[in-house]
Amino acid sequence: MSRPSDLPSEFELIARYFAPLATHEGARGLADDVAVLAPAPGKAHVLTVDTIVEGVHYLPEDPPQLVARKLLRVNLSDLAAKGARPVGYLLAASFGKSVTADWLAAFASGLAADQETYGLSLLGGDTTANPGPTTLSVTVIGEAEERTVVRRSGAKPGEGIYVSGTLGDAALGLRAIRGELSRLETSDREFLAGRFRLPEPRLALGQALLGVASATIDISDGLIADLGHVCQESAVRAEVALEDVPLSAAARRALAVDPALRDDVLGGGDDYEILFTASPNAERALTEAAMRARLAFSRIGTIREGAGIEVTDRAGRPVAVKHAGFRHF
Amino acid sequence: MSRPSDLPSEFELIARYFAPLATHEGARGLADDVAVLAPAPGKAHVLTVDTIVEGVHYLPEDPPQLVARKLLRVNLSDLAAKGARPVGYLLAASFGKSVTADWLAAFASGLAADQETYGLSLLGGDTTANPGPTTLSVTVIGEAEERTVVRRSGAKPGEGIYVSGTLGDAALGLRAIRGELSRLETSDREFLAGRFRLPEPRLALGQALLGVASATIDISDGLIADLGHVCQESAVRAEVALEDVPLSAAARRALAVDPALRDDVLGGGDDYEILFTASPNAERALTEAAMRARLAFSRIGTIREGAGIEVTDRAGRPVAVKHAGFRHF
Repeated sequence: MSRPSDLPSEFELIARYFAPLATHEGARGLADDVAVLAPAPGKAHVLTVDTIVEGVHYLPEDPPQLVARKLLRVNLSDLAAKGARPVGYLLAASFGKSVTADWLAAFASGLAADQETYGLSLLGGDTTANPGPTTLSVTVIGEAEERTVVRRSGAKPGEGIYVSGTLGDAALGLRAIRGELSRLETSDREFLAGRFRLPEPRLALGQALLGVASATIDISDGLIADLGHVCQESAVRAEVALEDVPLSAAARRALAVDPALRDDVLGGGDDYEILFTASPNAERALTEAAMRARLAFSRIGTIREGAGIEVTDRAGRPVAVKHAGFRHF
Repeated sequence: MSRPSDLPSEFELIARYFAPLATHEGARGLADDVAVLAPAPGKAHVLTVDTIVEGVHYLPEDPPQLVARKLLRVNLSDLAAKGARPVGYLLAASFGKSVTADWLAAFASGLAADQETYGLSLLGGDTTANPGPTTLSVTVIGEAEERTVVRRSGAKPGEGIYVSGTLGDAALGLRAIRGELSRLETSDREFLAGRFRLPEPRLALGQALLGVASATIDISDGLIADLGHVCQESAVRAEVALEDVPLSAAARRALAVDPALRDDVLGGGDDYEILFTASPNAERALTEAAMRARLAFSRIGTIREGAGIEVTDRAGRPVAVKHAGFRHF
């Protein structure tokens, strides 16, 4: 297999950088072909896979630690939305020519840091080399009670629509990284860039919402796109009040300078907050869940019969929504 | 996300090509962020991941159905060696510029064909686009009783070393595809090429060997490399008699023309046969296992105390082993 010249062989590479990350007994120290893993009694495994590509989802010059942590976190965010507890992950890494031994060491240290943060173990992996960009896929495995894992399809007319945290920060952060938003203070630009570079999977909130939320999804493709998934799978319509969409102070200042950036709030991806729906009777349970998770949430609208999404401004006028969907480098 | 021009959006692409492959209830029709999967009572999940890269593990002009089937089979081979029953898989596909809608349709039909053959379901996935070669990763999930999953590390001095089927066919097949081996009959070249293009994971044999084999591994990197893994993990030495290594009739004819091709038999990868060790007392149980699995196996040597691998010829002279390890495009 052709490899960048300073990289060790696949076996050395696994022994040096990856075997120390295989802390779970079921990983067999990466010294076998498989991992063996049983969920806790009464629990099921919850699985999802996500890929990030050099030059598409991250830049070659991004710090490798951050690349590693974002890779884990975009996957953990899917577990978070479903209320699952993380257990471990398998890594399929196809390294492009830009990957050096130093890059790998830093990448592995980023994995180690977030394994510690989220209680994860590397369970298995495969490394290949390729002449194109580095392509990194993680299959993450969590566990949860099978019947409690919230679907996208449970939203019902009359329920409230809620989001955690603040929206649009990551899309604005990408602009800041690209050198836009020059009229903002440095500290605002850094806050927004940080939200893009290192999302925080809302694991505690997702677990606290079990039994309370009727539908959940993490916001990775943008509010409108992901709310659209919930509406489609639940066969309902959504009404959203633009002024109720929660903004960070930095985002509010960015929109004050250029109101057109509101499209970043509605359409920009990569915030990795949780969007959920819940019955109006659940307000108290929601408040308790948010307190347990130490994370604010906001009601942004209401589920109705029908299909599609309607966003209105303060005066009740419809807001044209530029359906941005994905937004990457 | 930038995409080859005739490809539909990620959502349409999933709906059209991949959702029909999500036959397992736990896949939630790919209409959620996660799959939810509990092993059967008393069983654990067995997980592994493998990647194939366009231009490295397969050629752009290879039939997409075959690419899809090989992708599943190289993963299933790891489950086979461990005696696990396949359940499903997650697919991370990063499509390069050469991928068209027609290619995708054919690729999905290949997945469907082998899902049927092996009783698998697609459980989840992620598709991205990238400016380099297509990179396809599969995480496959099987189930087995946790305590029976055979390790690489169980080989003990005095035990026999066995392999299923015949070795070297895939490496010779790659030569045939490259236009070498011109002195062989067409039918021999086609047989060998077929062994390279479409391996057969030895699932029935792996399951039949549970409780009989002391160590197992599938031969993906070549006999010497994979036997080397068993020796290293088991802290033992291996003696192999070259004349006992099983050859297909086509491989025997290829070696008659060019004896140097024996390096393909010892070092060539991609055969995906099972290598296993077992106590001399287990001969009868092995024969019964092979009959249940309808697959021949051969004893090729003996495990001894020490380290390393010694291959000898008919006269007992040591054979120099070119440790080929990987062998890809």
